[in-house]
Amino acid sequence: MDAQQWLERQFGCRLNNDALLHQALSHRSVGSRNNERLEFLGDSVLGYVVSEELYRRFPDADEGQLSRLRVSLVKGSALAEVAREITLGEQLRLGVGERHGGGRRRNSILADSFEAILGAIVLDLGIEACRAAILKVFHARFEGLKLEQARKDPKTRLQELLQGSGRPLPEYVLRKATGEDHARIFTVACELADGREVAEGIGDSRRAAEQAAASAVLEQLGEP
Amino acid sequence: MDAQQWLERQFGCRLNNDALLHQALSHRSVGSRNNERLEFLGDSVLGYVVSEELYRRFPDADEGQLSRLRVSLVKGSALAEVAREITLGEQLRLGVGERHGGGRRRNSILADSFEAILGAIVLDLGIEACRAAILKVFHARFEGLKLEQARKDPKTRLQELLQGSGRPLPEYVLRKATGEDHARIFTVACELADGREVAEGIGDSRRAAEQAAASAVLEQLGEP
Repeated sequence: MDAQQWLERQFGCRLNNDALLHQALSHRSVGSRNNERLEFLGDSVLGYVVSEELYRRFPDADEGQLSRLRVSLVKGSALAEVAREITLGEQLRLGVGERHGGGRRRNSILADSFEAILGAIVLDLGIEACRAAILKVFHARFEGLKLEQARKDPKTRLQELLQGSGRPLPEYVLRKATGEDHARIFTVACELADGREVAEGIGDSRRAAEQAAASAVLEQLGEP
Repeated sequence: MDAQQWLERQFGCRLNNDALLHQALSHRSVGSRNNERLEFLGDSVLGYVVSEELYRRFPDADEGQLSRLRVSLVKGSALAEVAREITLGEQLRLGVGERHGGGRRRNSILADSFEAILGAIVLDLGIEACRAAILKVFHARFEGLKLEQARKDPKTRLQELLQGSGRPLPEYVLRKATGEDHARIFTVACELADGREVAEGIGDSRRAAEQAAASAVLEQLGEP
């Protein structure tokens, strides 16, 4: 399947400009005609289209909830998941090093390239075609979205819970970091000052591990 | 001048829905029908329109430069400045406390309300009318924009300069914070570990004061 056929199947559109699609699929490791500028543009158009869709779908959500719903849809790991579903990795053009280093499977490369494709679509076909493409790709996610998912993240909820009951704030301690530079695994402990609750979390960033640890402590406190 | 006349003069458009414009001009201090959801939407549409315009105007800029140019246009203090130019403060509806506390002149309220107006425009008139309104308001700023303005911020430049010559990183020390909660003035010193260069900066946030201090040190180092 060539890139235009793939684009049509997944995004429901074809570009007039083959070279632009080619560029959107070119990681910076292939040289100077790469997708970084398109990613800048695509990121912004995705933010706008998702925001307007959320605004319309959730008339009762406040701006904090809308923001959290947006983050849940457009954060890097979520976009990488979308990219995997639409087999974007197979279409990517990577330099030799990245190709052998597993670049096709890396979250950041997948997420950035997904945004770059949206940048190419908006340039070539305009904002309404790009909106339609985004809503097509995200259709199932929007349909499945519930306002309850707009919860604050575990670290914030834990902090608010402790503050509310006058207890001291938790400490997050890095216990372990293993793996290669581009595939690190972090283990973080969340410790409450009075020593009653301690839990560990694991994640592919320090932040993710902290959130997992906070979530485990919330569970211990009966506030999952 | 009523709100619609003001909108037409400054943004070149009128809304079909009076109530929506009214809401966009209502700070949360007036009650629950306020402009916070519209601000969420307007922020995203502004980001998209400015990004696409920058992408087209600066074909040779890399994504880092584009990002910095975008920040220079859409950061809170820049939007507050735009809001002042178009006398947005006079149109705002504030609760009693905010009205007496100088809310009409506060950067955050001005910037947020400016975004809320864009949110109302895109909902009422669509994205192309909103794009035209944004480009009208930002016309002189876009015309005056130069790629050289896409410089990294002073703290980053200072850090890179020091790292490049193997010198230790600077320390930023809060020297003073004066004024009321909503109008604080910070004084920060930037100290180089070897004590040769020290300078102070002043700003309305700690970060702004740090940037001013870094800028003064860059000056001392002959790298303004």
